[in-house]
Amino acid sequence: MSGETQRATDDDVRVARTRRDVGRAALRVITDGGPETFTHANVAAEAGYSRTTLYTHWPTKVELVTLALESVGRMPHGRRTGDPRADLGAELRAFRRGFVEAKLDQILMALAQWGVAVEEIAAIRDSIVEDGESVAREILAELASDDELEAAVAMLSGVVVCPALMYGRVPTDDVIDTAVAIVLKGLGVLPVDPV
Amino acid sequence: MSGETQRATDDDVRVARTRRDVGRAALRVITDGGPETFTHANVAAEAGYSRTTLYTHWPTKVELVTLALESVGRMPHGRRTGDPRADLGAELRAFRRGFVEAKLDQILMALAQWGVAVEEIAAIRDSIVEDGESVAREILAELASDDELEAAVAMLSGVVVCPALMYGRVPTDDVIDTAVAIVLKGLGVLPVDPV
Repeated sequence: MSGETQRATDDDVRVARTRRDVGRAALRVITDGGPETFTHANVAAEAGYSRTTLYTHWPTKVELVTLALESVGRMPHGRRTGDPRADLGAELRAFRRGFVEAKLDQILMALAQWGVAVEEIAAIRDSIVEDGESVAREILAELASDDELEAAVAMLSGVVVCPALMYGRVPTDDVIDTAVAIVLKGLGVLPVDPV
Repeated sequence: MSGETQRATDDDVRVARTRRDVGRAALRVITDGGPETFTHANVAAEAGYSRTTLYTHWPTKVELVTLALESVGRMPHGRRTGDPRADLGAELRAFRRGFVEAKLDQILMALAQWGVAVEEIAAIRDSIVEDGESVAREILAELASDDELEAAVAMLSGVVVCPALMYGRVPTDDVIDTAVAIVLKGLGVLPVDPV
């Protein structure tokens, strides 16, 4: 390996470490404090890097938010078994885990609030949401289309999102399973019990 | 009317006007700027009153938020006809109107974000949410109970809340009506079409 290449590799490692450290710090600042405390100075302090480093690599807040969101990673998705009832239940549990472990509610709220004003952030939010609901949408697309599909996707997301945002709590397994059953019965996929 | 009473009445009118002006201004500051700009100084400037007046009547931010939320008023609710399909559709349309006209999404987000840290604000949020979903819950409570009721309420709120928070748009009438039909079919209230 030539000296040139060695140096490039060392640089790559250093840059990757900086990205990772700053990304995680930026995410902590977003979830702990919200938009008002999200500044280059606060993220630099949290990450243990100089403000100059941050301004050099990520000159704008939008770039810093984008970096933070990369460090959230993709939403965990369950493995599909082909049984829509089991697969949707697994998806909603994974989604609920995101709310509990990754503070997805605070990330979504921060993005929603910023998204109103900043177009780039609205685009980032849309791509996170699309990724988050992609598997549930795929499963439901085999069972419904158009308005039924939109309604079903929004309702199943709502089972997790609404209690989390509106009451600060996540649904139990039983509520998740019951919601999946209601939707699948309503779509004619599962038989309806006699009332 | 004695002079004493007259003066008391004038005072009442003046206090009521101040409350109304400051409440509306506080709400505008919340919905336009979010938590970070919600300060006594900004609300005073927006309302055209002195900071001293604001600090005298509403010494803390929590009192100022409470005042702002009083000026949102109660959620509009439709008149119930007894047909759950029509009544739930009307409720969700009223809820959607709240998102469009009263910027309910931004109010909810601000409250959710503050609610994490401030117990009084979590309590205010809970009472707004309870009022907002009270009629839908009442209608559904006649058709479902326990987990089915929780799932159905969260799902129908979700039809409005999820697109609004996650994509910045509200659902169409057709999506609302389809969601109500899916839930009522899933609960065995409406007949399910053959697939």
